[in-house]
Amino acid sequence: MFRTAELDQKLPKSEYKQIVPILRQELLDLQMELRSAARTPVIIVFAGVDGAGKGATVHVLNEWMDVRWIINRAYRKPSDEERERPEFWRFWRDLPPKGQVGLYLSSWYSRPVLDRANAIISGPEFDERLDRIIAYENALAVDGALILKFWMHLSQKAQKKRLKSLERDPLLSWQVTEKDWEHWRLYDRFIEAAERTIIRTNTGNAPWSIVEGVDPGYRSATVGTGIRDAIRKRLNDLQRADALKTVNNTRGQETTAPTDQNVPETDDVGSTISLPQATVLSQLDLSQKLNKSDYKVELKKCQAQLSSLHRRAFEKGVSTIIVFEGPDAAGKGGAIRRIISALDPHIYQVLPFAAPTDEERAQHYLWRFWRRLSRAGHTTVFDRSWYGRVLVERVEGFATEKEWRRAYAEINDFEEQLIEHSIVLMKYWIHIDKDEQLRRFKEREQTPHKSWKLTDEDWRNREKWEGYEMAAHDMVQYTSTHVAPWVLVEGNNKQFSRIKVMKTLCEKLEGSLSE
Amino acid sequence: MFRTAELDQKLPKSEYKQIVPILRQELLDLQMELRSAARTPVIIVFAGVDGAGKGATVHVLNEWMDVRWIINRAYRKPSDEERERPEFWRFWRDLPPKGQVGLYLSSWYSRPVLDRANAIISGPEFDERLDRIIAYENALAVDGALILKFWMHLSQKAQKKRLKSLERDPLLSWQVTEKDWEHWRLYDRFIEAAERTIIRTNTGNAPWSIVEGVDPGYRSATVGTGIRDAIRKRLNDLQRADALKTVNNTRGQETTAPTDQNVPETDDVGSTISLPQATVLSQLDLSQKLNKSDYKVELKKCQAQLSSLHRRAFEKGVSTIIVFEGPDAAGKGGAIRRIISALDPHIYQVLPFAAPTDEERAQHYLWRFWRRLSRAGHTTVFDRSWYGRVLVERVEGFATEKEWRRAYAEINDFEEQLIEHSIVLMKYWIHIDKDEQLRRFKEREQTPHKSWKLTDEDWRNREKWEGYEMAAHDMVQYTSTHVAPWVLVEGNNKQFSRIKVMKTLCEKLEGSLSE
Repeated sequence: MFRTAELDQKLPKSEYKQIVPILRQELLDLQMELRSAARTPVIIVFAGVDGAGKGATVHVLNEWMDVRWIINRAYRKPSDEERERPEFWRFWRDLPPKGQVGLYLSSWYSRPVLDRANAIISGPEFDERLDRIIAYENALAVDGALILKFWMHLSQKAQKKRLKSLERDPLLSWQVTEKDWEHWRLYDRFIEAAERTIIRTNTGNAPWSIVEGVDPGYRSATVGTGIRDAIRKRLNDLQRADALKTVNNTRGQETTAPTDQNVPETDDVGSTISLPQATVLSQLDLSQKLNKSDYKVELKKCQAQLSSLHRRAFEKGVSTIIVFEGPDAAGKGGAIRRIISALDPHIYQVLPFAAPTDEERAQHYLWRFWRRLSRAGHTTVFDRSWYGRVLVERVEGFATEKEWRRAYAEINDFEEQLIEHSIVLMKYWIHIDKDEQLRRFKEREQTPHKSWKLTDEDWRNREKWEGYEMAAHDMVQYTSTHVAPWVLVEGNNKQFSRIKVMKTLCEKLEGSLSE
Repeated sequence: MFRTAELDQKLPKSEYKQIVPILRQELLDLQMELRSAARTPVIIVFAGVDGAGKGATVHVLNEWMDVRWIINRAYRKPSDEERERPEFWRFWRDLPPKGQVGLYLSSWYSRPVLDRANAIISGPEFDERLDRIIAYENALAVDGALILKFWMHLSQKAQKKRLKSLERDPLLSWQVTEKDWEHWRLYDRFIEAAERTIIRTNTGNAPWSIVEGVDPGYRSATVGTGIRDAIRKRLNDLQRADALKTVNNTRGQETTAPTDQNVPETDDVGSTISLPQATVLSQLDLSQKLNKSDYKVELKKCQAQLSSLHRRAFEKGVSTIIVFEGPDAAGKGGAIRRIISALDPHIYQVLPFAAPTDEERAQHYLWRFWRRLSRAGHTTVFDRSWYGRVLVERVEGFATEKEWRRAYAEINDFEEQLIEHSIVLMKYWIHIDKDEQLRRFKEREQTPHKSWKLTDEDWRNREKWEGYEMAAHDMVQYTSTHVAPWVLVEGNNKQFSRIKVMKTLCEKLEGSLSE
C-alpha cells in the first residue's frame, strides 16, 4: 500500500515557485466561493508517520489560505472537561460550520492507530473503533460535508533520516521527543495498523490520499492541489444539482437537497496546474535480465519445486489463486504456461477473463469471480481478474468514477475472505515499457502463427498507456496489502520475468504450507 | 424495539379475502415490469423468531407470484462443497439475476445471530460478522439491487403458544424440533442479538421491517404490500432517472447509470390498497388515573428519593440525560417541573429545543445536542430533542425521507456513545389522545395565564395527528433498545403520568448507581 509513496518524488524549487502563486490564488478564490455558497463544511484530516510533514503542511495551508475561515485543531491527551464527555464530544464540538474549512492534525484517527500499534487493543476492538469513525464521517458526509484525508508517508529509513536531521538542527531539535523514537521502533506495527485503517475507512464519502512526505515542496503542492480539485469538484457538483433542480421544477417535480449522495458527478474540474506524477511502475528496473542457459536451469528447478508444493497443497486442502494482470504483450500467457506445465491437470484450471457474458452482465461484477472459486486444494490461475474493474473499466469509462473508486474496498473485502479461508493468493503485475510493447506488437504482426494474438483493440489500448499506468499505480496503492501484496514483475526480459514469478510463487507456497 | 410488533395485530378473514386478489395482481404486474426492465435484482431476506411464520410467508409469496422468476433459498449446515469455499460463496452463487426475485429463508443472518445468542462469539466478533454482512449488502445495493429484509416477530409467550399448538397438530408437529425449544429457552439472548443486528444492519440501502407474526393473514398481507411498495418505488425511481437523463442529454451533460445512490427519490407509490395499522401508542391504556391525595403522597416520596439519588450521582460523577417527547399539551412541562424541583440548581439544566439557530443550522443536526452534553455528574433535561429529526422534521417535510430514515442509525450511534460513557439516559414519550388534547387546548384558550402557550402552530400540528403518531411508532420501533428503551407514559391523567415518570426515573438511577 505504501510502496506507492516511497518513490522519492520531488518537486524542483523552480517549479514549486512557479506553481505556488497560482495555487494560492485558486485556493483563496475557492474559499470565497465556499463561503458565499455556505452549504459545505470542509473537513481535512492529516495523519501519518511522524516526521512526514503533517504539521508543516498545515502550516503552509494556513499561509496560503484565508485563516479567518479556517479552524485548526490538534488533539492531544483529553482535558478534564473532555474526559467527562464521550470521546467524540470534542470532535463534534470543533466542526467547521458550512462554508468554512477545518484542518485536523492528530484527529480521531490518532488514538485508535496508536493503541493498535501498541497492542493495547485487539483486532476486533480496533475494527470497532474504526466503525465509530466510519459512522461519524458518514453522518457528516451525507449531510453535505466534504471530507478529505491525507496520509503522509515516510519509509522507515526516511523517517530515521528525518528525525536525525531534526535532532541535529538546534532550532528544530525540540520537535523530536523520545515518543517519536518510540514510534519509530514500532514502525512495522504502526504501518500495519495504518494499512488496516486506510482499507476500512477509505470510503467514497471520505477518501484517503497517500502522500509521500520526503520533499516539502512536493508534499505541500500535492496536498494543495488535492484540496483545490476536491473543493472545485464539489462546487461544480452543487451548481449542476441546482441546474437540474431548476429543470425539474419547471417540470413540476420535487427534488431533495443536494448532498454527496444525490449530486450527479462531474469529473472535469478544469485544473489549471497539475503536478508531474511518478508511478510505482516507472520505478521498476526493467533492464534486469536472465540469460537463456541460466533460465533453463532455473526453470527446471522451479518447476520441480512447484510440482511438489502443488501436490502438498492439494493433500493439505490448501487452495491457490494466482492472478495475472499487466499491459498487452507483457508475457502473462508465457508465465502461465510455465506454471501449469508443473501442475496436475486434474487439480488446476486457467480462467481467462474478457468481456462478461450475458449471464454475468445480469449480476454484480464480482459474481463471475465468486462462482469460479475452486474446491479445496485446487489451483486457479486468473488470466485477468476482478481488477478489470479498476483497470480497463476505469480507463475505458465502462465504470463510473464512483463505481471504480468503491471497487477498491469491495476487492479488499473479497480478498480478505479468501485469505481468512486460508486460500493462498498471489497477484502479479507483469510490466513492460512502451517501447518493448511496440517491439512485441511488431514481432507479432510479422510472425504468422502469432499474428492472431494482435487485435485492433491492442493498438487502441496502447494509446491509453498513461491512463492504464495511473490506474495500475492507484490499484497498487489501494489493494497491495500486507496479507495480499502485489508482486510487480519486471517483464522486458521474458526469462527474468518468468523465473521471478515462479520463485515468488514457490516461496509463498512454501511459507503457507509450513504454517 | 420489538414492542411495536407485540400489538396482537390481526387482519380479519373477510378483509384478507378482499385484499389478496388485488395484491396478487399487483405483484404479478410488478414482476413483469421488473423482468422487462431487467435492471434490478430483488433480494428479500426473512429472519426472526421460530414459529413467527417465515416459512409460511415465503410459501404464500410463491403462491402469489410467478415462480418462474423466483429463486428460493434456505441455508442450513454448509455442505462439503460449501465448506471448502469462503462462507459467502454460497450466498454469492445464488444471487438472482437482474429482473428476478430471490427469497431467502435463514440467510446470511442466521449463523451470526445464533452464534451470538449461544455466546459462541463475543460482542466485537459479532460486530465483525455484521460488518461483513453490511459490506455484502452494500456492494449489491449500490450496484442496483433492491434489498428488503423482514424480521418476523413473536413475543416469548406467543412463541410458546405457537410451538405448543403446532405440537398438538398431528399434521404439523414434525415442524417442532428440540432445537426450537432450545431457541425458545434462549429467547432473551436471541432477542438481544437480534436487536443489535437490526440496529447495525438497518441501512438505507437494505432496511429492515419488523412484522408481527401472530396472525397469518396480517403478516402475509404486510409483507406482500411491503414488497409491492418497494418494487413500485424502485421502478418509478428508475423511470424518473431515465427522464432526467433524457433532459440532461439534450442539455449535453453526461450522467451515470441509475443506482440506488443517484436516483432521486419518489415518495408517492400510488398504492391501491394499504393495511390498517395499529400503533404502539394506540395500545396504551390512557384511562389510568391517580387521585390527587395519593398523588401528593407519592410525589413527596419520589422527590425525596430523586433528590438523594441526584446527589449520589453527582458524587459518583454519573451524568443523567432525560429526554421528553410527546404531543403538544401532553404535560411534558409539568413533568419536568416536578423533577427539577427535587434537583440542585447548580448541577442541572433544562434545555428546550425549538427551531435551530443560525449557528446551529450551519452544522449537522446532531451538533446542537452534542455541544450541550454536560460535565460529569450533572443532570440535563431535554425538552424535545434529537428525535425532532424523525418526528417534526419528518412529518413537516423539513427532512427528506432518506434523511430521516438514516437518522435512526445516527441516533442509535449517538446514544450508544452516551451509554458507553456511563451516562444514564431516560427517554419519555408522554402520550395523550386527540380528545384530551382538544380539551387542554380549549382550557388554555380560556385561561388567561395559559393562553400564551397555545399557538397557531399547535393547531396546525394537531391536524397532522396521524402522521405524528405513525412517526412516533416508527421511532419506538427503531430506537427503543434494551440499553436505551423508550418509556411510554399514559398522560391523560397528569397525576398518573408525573408519578410514572418520577418512579421510573428513580428506579433507573437506583439501578445505575448501585452497579
